[in-house]
Order: sequence, then C-alpha cells, then structure tokens
Amino acid sequence: MPDKKVEVGIVMGSDSDLPVMEDAAKFLDEMGIGYEMRVISAHRTPDIAKEYATSALDRGLKVIIAGAGKAAHLAGVLASFTPLPVIGVPVRTSTLGGADSLYSMVQMPSGVPVATVALNGAKNAAILALQIMATGDRDKMDKMIEFKKRLKKETINKDKNLKNKMS
Amino acid sequence: MPDKKVEVGIVMGSDSDLPVMEDAAKFLDEMGIGYEMRVISAHRTPDIAKEYATSALDRGLKVIIAGAGKAAHLAGVLASFTPLPVIGVPVRTSTLGGADSLYSMVQMPSGVPVATVALNGAKNAAILALQIMATGDRDKMDKMIEFKKRLKKETINKDKNLKNKMS
Amino acid sequence: MPDKKVEVGIVMGSDSDLPVMEDAAKFLDEMGIGYEMRVISAHRTPDIAKEYATSALDRGLKVIIAGAGKAAHLAGVLASFTPLPVIGVPVRTSTLGGADSLYSMVQMPSGVPVATVALNGAKNAAILALQIMATGDRDKMDKMIEFKKRLKKETINKDKNLKNKMS
Amino acid sequence: MPDKKVEVGIVMGSDSDLPVMEDAAKFLDEMGIGYEMRVISAHRTPDIAKEYATSALDRGLKVIIAGAGKAAHLAGVLASFTPLPVIGVPVRTSTLGGADSLYSMVQMPSGVPVATVALNGAKNAAILALQIMATGDRDKMDKMIEFKKRLKKETINKDKNLKNKMS
Amino acid sequence: MPDKKVEVGIVMGSDSDLPVMEDAAKFLDEMGIGYEMRVISAHRTPDIAKEYATSALDRGLKVIIAGAGKAAHLAGVLASFTPLPVIGVPVRTSTLGGADSLYSMVQMPSGVPVATVALNGAKNAAILALQIMATGDRDKMDKMIEFKKRLKKETINKDKNLKNKMS
Amino acid sequence: MPDKKVEVGIVMGSDSDLPVMEDAAKFLDEMGIGYEMRVISAHRTPDIAKEYATSALDRGLKVIIAGAGKAAHLAGVLASFTPLPVIGVPVRTSTLGGADSLYSMVQMPSGVPVATVALNGAKNAAILALQIMATGDRDKMDKMIEFKKRLKKETINKDKNLKNKMS
Amino acid sequence: MPDKKVEVGIVMGSDSDLPVMEDAAKFLDEMGIGYEMRVISAHRTPDIAKEYATSALDRGLKVIIAGAGKAAHLAGVLASFTPLPVIGVPVRTSTLGGADSLYSMVQMPSGVPVATVALNGAKNAAILALQIMATGDRDKMDKMIEFKKRLKKETINKDKNLKNKMS
Amino acid sequence: MPDKKVEVGIVMGSDSDLPVMEDAAKFLDEMGIGYEMRVISAHRTPDIAKEYATSALDRGLKVIIAGAGKAAHLAGVLASFTPLPVIGVPVRTSTLGGADSLYSMVQMPSGVPVATVALNGAKNAAILALQIMATGDRDKMDKMIEFKKRLKKETINKDKNLKNKMS
Repeated sequence: MPDKKVEVGIVMGSDSDLPVMEDAAKFLDEMGIGYEMRVISAHRTPDIAKEYATSALDRGLKVIIAGAGKAAHLAGVLASFTPLPVIGVPVRTSTLGGADSLYSMVQMPSGVPVATVALNGAKNAAILALQIMATGDRDKMDKMIEFKKRLKKETINKDKNLKNKMS
Repeated sequence: MPDKKVEVGIVMGSDSDLPVMEDAAKFLDEMGIGYEMRVISAHRTPDIAKEYATSALDRGLKVIIAGAGKAAHLAGVLASFTPLPVIGVPVRTSTLGGADSLYSMVQMPSGVPVATVALNGAKNAAILALQIMATGDRDKMDKMIEFKKRLKKETINKDKNLKNKMS
Repeated sequence: MPDKKVEVGIVMGSDSDLPVMEDAAKFLDEMGIGYEMRVISAHRTPDIAKEYATSALDRGLKVIIAGAGKAAHLAGVLASFTPLPVIGVPVRTSTLGGADSLYSMVQMPSGVPVATVALNGAKNAAILALQIMATGDRDKMDKMIEFKKRLKKETINKDKNLKNKMS
Repeated sequence: MPDKKVEVGIVMGSDSDLPVMEDAAKFLDEMGIGYEMRVISAHRTPDIAKEYATSALDRGLKVIIAGAGKAAHLAGVLASFTPLPVIGVPVRTSTLGGADSLYSMVQMPSGVPVATVALNGAKNAAILALQIMATGDRDKMDKMIEFKKRLKKETINKDKNLKNKMS
Repeated sequence: MPDKKVEVGIVMGSDSDLPVMEDAAKFLDEMGIGYEMRVISAHRTPDIAKEYATSALDRGLKVIIAGAGKAAHLAGVLASFTPLPVIGVPVRTSTLGGADSLYSMVQMPSGVPVATVALNGAKNAAILALQIMATGDRDKMDKMIEFKKRLKKETINKDKNLKNKMS
Repeated sequence: MPDKKVEVGIVMGSDSDLPVMEDAAKFLDEMGIGYEMRVISAHRTPDIAKEYATSALDRGLKVIIAGAGKAAHLAGVLASFTPLPVIGVPVRTSTLGGADSLYSMVQMPSGVPVATVALNGAKNAAILALQIMATGDRDKMDKMIEFKKRLKKETINKDKNLKNKMS
Repeated sequence: MPDKKVEVGIVMGSDSDLPVMEDAAKFLDEMGIGYEMRVISAHRTPDIAKEYATSALDRGLKVIIAGAGKAAHLAGVLASFTPLPVIGVPVRTSTLGGADSLYSMVQMPSGVPVATVALNGAKNAAILALQIMATGDRDKMDKMIEFKKRLKKETINKDKNLKNKMS
Repeated sequence: MPDKKVEVGIVMGSDSDLPVMEDAAKFLDEMGIGYEMRVISAHRTPDIAKEYATSALDRGLKVIIAGAGKAAHLAGVLASFTPLPVIGVPVRTSTLGGADSLYSMVQMPSGVPVATVALNGAKNAAILALQIMATGDRDKMDKMIEFKKRLKKETINKDKNLKNKMS
C-alpha cells in the first residue's frame, strides 16, 4: 500500500471478497491514489463498521468503496454513517446469479444512496472514485481524461489484432 | 398497545410499512402477548437501530420482528447487534416483484441469521414469534396448539361453505 | 452424535443434502446441544414426515431444522403437523439459481410460517435454533453471546491479516 | 354439482382460489364429467389432505386437480399420498410475478411428479384431466377430439372477424 | 427397445437431449411398458412433428413425452396436433437458469395444455405417463402402487444409513 | 387495409393481442406498405399456421411479424415453415413480468432464428420490417432514412418543450 | 430553474420520464444547486447525446444524472463521451418488474462505470450528486451533513407519531 | 476473410466475444457471403461506433450483426446511427444467467429496433442476415431454402441414428 495520503477506503465484508476487490486497489495504484483496504463486516463487526464510516470524513477520506455478496448490506450500512459518497460493488456468489448481491446494494431507500456498479465491478468502482474526486481536483480530472484515451487505444488495438488475424 | 410486559419488538423501516406490519400486532393482541411498535430506519437512524438492538435483551425482549422493503437491511442490522432471534418480514414494493426485499433479508451471511417469512407475511412473523417463545414457555405453547386448531377449523368451514355453494 | 438430550431435529429431504446440512450438526456439536439427523421426504415418505412432526413436541424437541431443494416442501409439511418452530434451509440445486428452493420454503401461506434462512445456510439455521432456545434458557443465551464475540474476533483477525498482507 | 359419478377432484388451498379454479369446473360441466370441489389446505388441514388423497383411488377418482398459490405445496402433498395423477394449477398472486407458485409446483423431486399447467391455467388442467381419462375411455377421447375441433373453429371465426374489421 | 406394444412416445428436440431423456426410457423399461424414442425438432422438422403427433392416436400411443430446451416449443407443437396427453420435460441449458425452457413449456395458452414436470425431470415424466395410463388399466395402477412402496423403502433405507453413519 | 401489394404479414395468436399489434399496422400504413392481418394460433389452428407460412414466399410476402404471449410459439412455428425472416413481438401478459413471452420467442434453437423485438414492441417490429425490405429496395431505404429524421425531430421538440416548461 | 451556475445535468430519455426525474430537480432546488434538465435520447438523438456529454466538462458541469427505462442505454452512452461521473436512474416500466432498466444501467463493462441508484431513485441520484461535489467543496459537504440530520429527524418524528397512535 | 463484396458487418464489443461471434462468420463463409469482423466498443470507442454505423450504408453493407454482453449497448448504439437493420447477439456472461445481456439488447425503445436472437446465437444471427438480404435477392433466397433442407436432413439423420442405437 502506497505511502500517499489515503483518500479512498476499500472495504470488504469478508476476506473471500479480496480476489474481486483487488482490482480496485490495482487501478488506484496505477493512478497514484492513496487508499486503504479493510475487512469489515456489517453483521459480524457492526461497531467497527459504524466507527469506520463515522470517522471517515475527518480522517480525510473522500470516497468509500464497499464490496460484499449475498445480502450485501455493507455499503448501505457505511452510507448510513457518513456523508461521503459510498460506491457499492455487488460480489457475485453462486446463488441466484448474483441478483441477491445486486438488489441488496442498489435498491437503497430514499435519503441514503449507494452508487452501485456492476457485479464484481471493482475496477469500475475505482474509476468512479477517481471521477468523483476529479470533480474537485483538476489533476485527477487530467488523469481520468488520460485513462479514457488509453482505454480507447486498447480497444483499437484489439480491433487491429482481429483484422490481422482475419486476413 | 396492551399494558403487559413487552416481549416482542415490532420494528419497521418506514411508517409506510405500517399497513403490512399491523397484522403482526393484531395477532399478538389476540394472543395476549405484549409488544411495542417502532419506526427505526437502518439507514436514516442507524444509531437508534444500534441502541434499540443492543439494549433489547436487557429490556426483556424475547424476539424482534423487523419489516422493510427494497434493500431491506433493517432485520440484518438489528440482528448484528443482538443475540435475540430476529424475524424478517420482506415488504413487497412495486419493483422487481418483491425479490429485492426478499433477497436482502434472507441471504444473510454466515454467523448472523434472519428468520425470514413470506413477502408481507407479518402475521406469520408474529406466529413464529409465539412459537419461538413457546419453546421455553408451556403457556404459550398451549396458545400455539390452540391456534393451530382454530386454523384448521377455519379451513374446514371454508370447505363446508364451498360444498353448500356447489350443491 | 452426542449422548445429550436431543433438542433439535435436523431433517433433510434426501441424503444428497447431507454435505449442506452437516454444517448445522457441526455448530450444534460445538455448542454442546443435542440433536438428531434424519432423512425424511415430504413426498416419498409423507407418513413418516407426519409422524415425525406430530410427535416432536412430546419427544422433547424444541426446534426442527429442515433442508430440501427444488420444490422444497419438507419444512412446510413438517410445520403443518407441529406447533414447534421450523427453520427451513433452501438447498441450492443447479436449476433456476436456487430460486425454486427458496420460494418454495419462504412463501408459506398465512398461519404456518417457516423461518427461512439463506440458500445452503445450514450453519445459520443452527445458530437460529440456538437463539430460539435461548429465549427461554439463560445458559444458551450466554453461549449465543459468546458466539457473537467469537464471530467478531474472527473478522477482526481477517482484517489484521489483510493489513499485514498489504503493508 | 352434477349427479354423475365423480371422477375428478378439484381441490384448492384457499377459497380465495375459487375464481381461478371455477374454470376447471366449468369445462368439466360442459364435457359432462362428474367432479367434486374442495377447500383443503396442505398446511392448515394436512390430515384432511392426507385422507383425501389416500382414499381417492378407492372412492373412484381418476384424476386430482390441485390449485394453490405462493409456496404451493398442495399438489405435491396430495401426490405424495396417491398413485393417481395429480395436476397442479399454480395460482398467480401479487408477489414475484407468480414464479413462487410455479416453481413450488413444477420442480417436484424424483419419484413424485405433478403435472403442472400454466399460471391460473385451471381450464387447461380440466382439459388435461379429460385427456388423461381418455387414454382408457374411447367415449372421452371422442369428446376431446370434438373439443379440439371446436377450438379450431373459434380461432378461425376470430380470424374472420378481424378480416371483416380490417376491410 | 422392448418388443412390446408401443404405448409411450419419447420425443426429443435434439440428440443432445438424450442423456436427460434416457431416464424416461429406463423407468418404462423397468415397468415393462413399450415405448419408442425419436429425435424430432419442432423447428427443423416441423412436418415430421405434425405427422408424428397426428398419427399417434391411431398408431396406438397413449401418451407422448417431449423433451426440449431453450425456446422449447416441441411439447406444445405436438399437443396442437393430437388429442393425447403430452408431457413436457424442460431441458436445462446453460442460459437463464433454465427458466427459458420451463416457461416455454408450461405457459401454454388456453385449450392446449402441456403436462409439465421439473427441469430435466424425465424420470418423473415417465412416472406420470404410467399414472395416466393407470387411470384406465388396473394392471398399471398396481405397478404404480408397487413403485410408490419401493420409493418409500429407498428413502427409509437412506434414513437408516444416515443413522448408522451418525452413531 | 390498403389496396397495395401485400408485403408484410401481421399474425397474432389471439384477437386479444390486437391492441398491441395494431401499432405495427399503423406504422406500415404511414409508410404506405401493404400488409395483411391474421389471427392464427400455433396451437389451436396449427394447420393454418403451417399453410400460411409455407405459402408466404409464393404469395409475395417479404416479412412476417408474429405477436403472441405466454408460451409464445407462434413466431417460431411460422419460422419453421418459411425461409422468410420472421419478426417476433412478445406480448406482455400479467404473469412473470412478460419473461415467459420473451424467452419463448427469443431463445430459438440453432437453425431457425426469430428476430425478436421488445415486449409489446409491435411498432418496432414494423420499423424492422421496413429496414429489412429496404436492404433490397432503395425507395424503402429513403423512407427509413426519412423516418429516422422525423424521430429525431420529435425528441428535439420534447427537449424544447421541457426547456420552455422549466424556464 | 434557478439562475445559479449549472453544475448538474439532469437528462432523461423521454419526456415520459419527467414525473420520476423531477424528484432530482426538487432536491437540488432545496439545496440551492444549479442544474439543467434535458430530454435527450441515446437512440433517437445520438448526436445530441454525444455533443451534450462531450462538452459537459467544459461547460462547467460536475455531474450528469441520466434517467431511462427498458434498454436504458442513456447513462452508459453519456458516460462513454465524458470523464465526468454519470449517475444512472433506472426508470421502472411495466415490463419485467424493472429488471430490464436496472441491468441495462448497472452492468456496464470495465472502464466505463455508471453510478446506479435504485429503480425510480431520482432523489437519491441528486443526493449522490451532492455527495460527489462535496468531496471537493466544504460548503456542499456541510449541506450534506445538514441533510442527514434532517433525514434522521424525520424518521424520529415518524417513530413518535407511531408511538402516539399506539397508546 | 473472403475477397467478396462485404455485405455484413460483424461487430463485437470485446475480443473476448470472438469465440461466440465466430459462428456467424463461419455460416456466412459457408454461404459465400462477404463480411467483415470488427472489435468496436459502444463505451470505449464510441466515436468509432458512430462512424462505423453512420458510414455503413454508403460502404455497401446490408446488415450489421452486433454481439455484446452484460449492459450490452452496442447493437442499440449502432442502430441509432444507421437505417440498416441491426441484429443483436446477447453474449452470455457468468452473471444473472445472461438476463442482463438479453434485456439490454431486446428491450429497445420505440423507433429504434434491434433484431435480437438467442443468447450466444451468433449462427442464428447470420442465418437471419441471409434471410433479410434474401428478401431482395432471389439467389440468396435459394441458398436459404437449400439451407433449410439441409437442416431438416441433419435432424432426420440424428433421428435415424437414435433408432439404430436403440434397436
């Protein structure tokens, strides 16, 4: 974990979510953004969840990314204790095609939104975190613009490779 | 609300859930069991939710019934703070046929169960509360046995009415 | 199976459900609670199901845990014949993502609840059984409180391990 | 109810299912087939369900039609107690789009089939009952053949009406 | 295939359905009932489907079992051309959890039922075929009664095995 | 119905589908394209369905639009008998949110596609019919290009109206 | 629409989405945040969608909120053309329980996230927009903190009202 | 890729879709129809998507086949920029059983249809492309008629093989 100012909290409900949530860390590393990773369960360590979210703003966090599966309450529980934007990553499990994780995250009641991304979409959660911080930080906006260009180039290269393969 | 010792907490995430959750109160009234009704939101008043659940055992509660809709975290959040059994009533809303409410309640992670009943099944939640308390209270068990007999009679009467109607 | 007084019946619709339902037995073993395990099919041995449920209270059972898959009627059928609380474990099969097992268990009609836990949630069913019995048994309540502490510690340890891994 | 030999049992889990199940009775009336209608609940009057199904063959029934909603166990429970073919009518309720009723009926385990028709498909259940009995009764087969011709004519007439309307 | 009078037609939409549909053949073999197996596609060989169904009654068939997956029209198409009862086996494929196969079979419009069994439930389809024919054939009814006893014994044995294993 | 050469067949499984399918007719009227409307049921008048589809090419049809609900086999059945492109309109009914109609149409097996549009999307079916014919008819392509411009203008006007309303 | 600097773009795919999307405008009005409302269709006016998103950053927008139903591509299409965070509001329609709108929005591929909120959750989208901008604007953060307090008070009042009603 | 006039564009959102989309190319090769294959992302290279679709008609394309998964906007985005018919192939991914891909493609709003085929149905997409072009090209119609005969023969052969195997 980098030595930079921690701006993003990556929280997961169980260490079994790590293979999915690592994608978020990797992207933030590439972008040079400081983050911390935590295993905090909305149901098994609710007091820690509360404390984590309640103190997040004062500790300098800008965005919280929360990944969880099944009845995935973690993102909503964190959001209930902080004014910071919370991004939810519904983690796909082997039941119900992942609809349980998704619905539990995205269908938040009025007043407490969770910015939900795709099932297992931890990388997109990190990109969204960058976009969010970039609204108040021109430097990060430039990184985001750069990233979109890179994304474009990658797809163009795949297109070229296919053409070469076909001819 | 009766003057008896309060043994069951009926909690709902929003006052719009009252028409559904009243069925629980009505059944407990019929059975002469003391209860209290509260509007507590897992997301809008998380501290109250915590306090309510944390103190429930010492305040003499035996069972908590929690009703909520959409991303229905209330039952799980209460369960995280109390050793008491928590019964979840997924409240049907107009989206996703109610699958969101149901999955958010029933798919709890290992360690923290929520005893989930049918969508809008508040009466069944109260019956289950009676069954639960009856495991340690012969008087309540007798009430439950009596109730099952009554249930049987009602269906037998409906059967007779249909026969009369047909002939 | 321990020599203690049998308080919990663990019933499964088919011996193919054993790998899932064993988690319930394991938890009860850890807690020192007596149980029995049975293969009883709601459809293939309905008379045995009836007899089992009808006699359960008199035989001293406090709670029945029933696991079944697909059109999972077992829990409901047992519940129809006993005033005891019945906990349903919907067993995930390869069809419909498990929605068939879940809906067949949880959507019980008015009058006869089944306390449904997550798909394959046999351990949670056993925890719930402990919570239910604890409402009338201070000793079991202490075990439950102890268990929640242990649960918390496990998650805290996972959090520490992640921190160590990251630094 | 006609004075003829009763060959078909139409059973419903609740009298609220009557508006749906009447379609079955109406078709059998038209075909001159004797039937009986009953309200029997798999969960509220399980003993009557057992008795009804167990005695059905000896009482001269040929087919049982069972309609129920939500966790619709009725057809499966009856099938467990009789060698007769049981036709299931999943009754649509306001939850989960009716998937609960359907899955609970159709996904029966190996050994005990329920011949499931469409949601609210009580008329089709009665037609299927006729087809079933017709396999051993040439008179009924002629009725079925006649019915299919009538069905064809009705659709041809609708086609003509549309043509007239368009021109 | 036995030399007996063919009473049941087992039809599948593709030879890839054979591993599923063989279960039906196996059961009929055990029961000593004559059958034929065919690969007929509602969409690729519609004329053969029509001819097969149209001639089925005169060729002495009593029941048709049709297995197909995805947009599983085969059972409905056969049912449209014959007064015989048609049993549908929705074959599970890798998409949509099998809901496509199931809905395409069971949701038949008024007038033309398909007796639908569980996903991949070919054995149950054959049992149902026996039950159907047994309504007009006491010999087959005895076989069915015998089968139900055997089914019961098998489950009782599994129950005993589990008890032995546990003690 | 116009006096022009009939190029599009609009077929529906029941006259109850007319309110939905009229949208297709209306669009073709606006575009000056000849069509015919028929009520033909895949299950109640299968011979007429066969005849209709088999003769369609020789009668000068270019495209067939088929609308049906629930187990919506009509489009697939027509497609099995004709080399012409068949467009399917899954008609929404009150069960399963329309997933039954949709899956039955779109999940066609290899070899026999149905070009499926949205639930109740009869207008889009007609637009698609125009696009299909336009691949070999410059005049129709011009109409299509014109239509897309009109579509754009309508949305631009709605945008203007909203701006006016807001200011 | 207020005269303030426009920081949020509220875009909807059709003017029929206005009753849902107005909730976003209302919240921003209450918070004194400048916004604009537009009807832009990803499919009917794709060039305007592109232009709108491409120019958004330079025009001073901070966040885009996009509401659309069914195959709801609008949010994704806008996100493809801008580095700004895009919040998606899946609008519930009468088909598939809204799962179509939700899945089309939230399941974005790697590289281009859409911050999805609940079905019809336009108010939560606006709250999220405030939270996003507040990460770089202390004034807005104070508004957000204030809002959370108000939210809490409203629920506490509902709780009091229920208590009064019950006693 | 053949040297013929390119009439069909096969576009995929990612090179990971190639194993699915190759089936379309293979069929067109067999039919001697010229095509091109491209990797173009609606979200990562939206400008290329626009340019590709906008120029397609003038470059002589007749039909576009677009395959994509999850929030599968590609087909809709291409359709928004061209009057040509666009065929959508929803690519099955590991989430939600593929319902996300399917709904995102088929549920297009009024005015801009996508001719959707089955999940992973790339071969059917190519057949549909042939059928579409055949409406204005007798030579292609003959190929299509020939193909349907071949399809029939293949199924007849499978039927024969099964008969041989059984006897």
